[in-house]
Amino acid sequence: MPIMETSLPTEGPGAKIILGEPVQKGYFYGYEGVVLHEEGGEQAIMILENPFWGRIFFINGTAQFTSRDEFIYHEALVHIPIQAFPEGRVRKVLICGGGDYGAAREVLKYPEVEKVLIADIDPRVPRLVRQFFPALLPQDPADPRLELLTVDAFALVQELVEKNEHFDLVIIDSTDPDISLAERTLELSHSLFSESFHRMLLQLAPEGAIVQQAATPFTMKEILEGSYRVFQRVYGKDIFCYRASIPSFGGDNAYLLRFPGDPTQPRRTWIPETLYYTHQIHRASFALPRFWLKEVLDKNG
Amino acid sequence: MPIMETSLPTEGPGAKIILGEPVQKGYFYGYEGVVLHEEGGEQAIMILENPFWGRIFFINGTAQFTSRDEFIYHEALVHIPIQAFPEGRVRKVLICGGGDYGAAREVLKYPEVEKVLIADIDPRVPRLVRQFFPALLPQDPADPRLELLTVDAFALVQELVEKNEHFDLVIIDSTDPDISLAERTLELSHSLFSESFHRMLLQLAPEGAIVQQAATPFTMKEILEGSYRVFQRVYGKDIFCYRASIPSFGGDNAYLLRFPGDPTQPRRTWIPETLYYTHQIHRASFALPRFWLKEVLDKNG
Repeated sequence: MPIMETSLPTEGPGAKIILGEPVQKGYFYGYEGVVLHEEGGEQAIMILENPFWGRIFFINGTAQFTSRDEFIYHEALVHIPIQAFPEGRVRKVLICGGGDYGAAREVLKYPEVEKVLIADIDPRVPRLVRQFFPALLPQDPADPRLELLTVDAFALVQELVEKNEHFDLVIIDSTDPDISLAERTLELSHSLFSESFHRMLLQLAPEGAIVQQAATPFTMKEILEGSYRVFQRVYGKDIFCYRASIPSFGGDNAYLLRFPGDPTQPRRTWIPETLYYTHQIHRASFALPRFWLKEVLDKNG
Repeated sequence: MPIMETSLPTEGPGAKIILGEPVQKGYFYGYEGVVLHEEGGEQAIMILENPFWGRIFFINGTAQFTSRDEFIYHEALVHIPIQAFPEGRVRKVLICGGGDYGAAREVLKYPEVEKVLIADIDPRVPRLVRQFFPALLPQDPADPRLELLTVDAFALVQELVEKNEHFDLVIIDSTDPDISLAERTLELSHSLFSESFHRMLLQLAPEGAIVQQAATPFTMKEILEGSYRVFQRVYGKDIFCYRASIPSFGGDNAYLLRFPGDPTQPRRTWIPETLYYTHQIHRASFALPRFWLKEVLDKNG
């Protein structure tokens, strides 16, 4: 019976450690690896090199993405809404969070896109991704269509609404809300999951698509439950849920999509180069396990 | 940064332990829990009670199933082949392995089924499941249609072929082959994954469905690669691959299916009570990620 051994981390780059990432009560992932980078602050960052996952980016001890499977998360986040629109329809894109560039990399594969704005509050994420995760950068890292603002996405959206700006696609690519608070308040403690944020997005993209990553229901169903309620209140019937199986997240990740029309069938013929996404995958992504329908979304399966 | 703590297991039931299950190089799952049962032998068995997973059945330190997500694995294994046949078509079913009863539980939900034969070499598995995992048993644990034989499935199939018996559905629900050997020999070291076994199954079920669980390609792609080659050689063009996302397996599990006709569309209207399976899930299960098609199955995506 294999029993794990531990070693305390030596501070700083080059240290070999075994790290435990809590997933659920009494359940965690263990990573052996070499620390490539560490920095503190309100959100403590660590980058670990691991023989299986490649590089892993941790914020406060929670893996945010890995070099081995980030492509699944980002391709599902971006290509499903874009391929649901006919060609030429997606010109202006706002990414709330997403300072790791992965979503922007996928969006910029479409020549029709004229403008991609990333609004991420933490300037360290893009800096460290440029240094340690070059595969997440757009094919042309100096693509003039891309603008990265170090700003709270909530505040930026307020400003954009006041200026009467419009977007064809808004992507909310944020960290997960803290569900220990959700249990008490039934509200998600993250401004980018709030009803007031989505009411502004509806003004920003009245004819557009709005997609939000909504975590992994198998381990954290409160996030999909809470964000689905917000989507229902704000967007009424134009809402859809889809999923993608992301191994480092521990199961199927949920995405909520507000879409004007039916997004379940792709409308394009051309697909950029992908490793995960196909048109068959697109259609399949909207089929949800019965326990999601019944227990999380409160629908009949 | 959370760092896991270890404690050595105390031998025997009631011991509190932290167990590390190796998944891949430098990557493992950690479970805190209470040992409910332990026994040695060539295949060492342990049953652990864990706050998130419920009960976990380990063989040689590898989790075989958990009470929390076994339903996904078993429903995908059984309902996809059965629902692909028209009603009334599945009378005789052989389960190779499957001594945990989970596959039989699903098969016996169909009133048309007249006979289910489980062939499992290890008598401890059904005994311990009856004691510790009653939810895996058929609705009627004494269902007269069910017969459990403690026998090597390979030997039993040889016998059944000699007797010219026929089955409508054969389910291969076994442990994974050891892939450290596959790297050297390109053959899977498990008789239920061998070409000679499948040549016998073709005689046993010339017009039937044959489904094999083929592990999780994200962490062990050699198993799907190897079994796909065997399926191609034995069954020619009647082969299909589908998937189900099983959190405790670390991602999408692959299933290989030999089917006479097109199994991608369900042909029935009635579905027994399920927690995972729906007809939408059925159709979606055959959509494979592009990296499976290209890297594992060597197809164009």
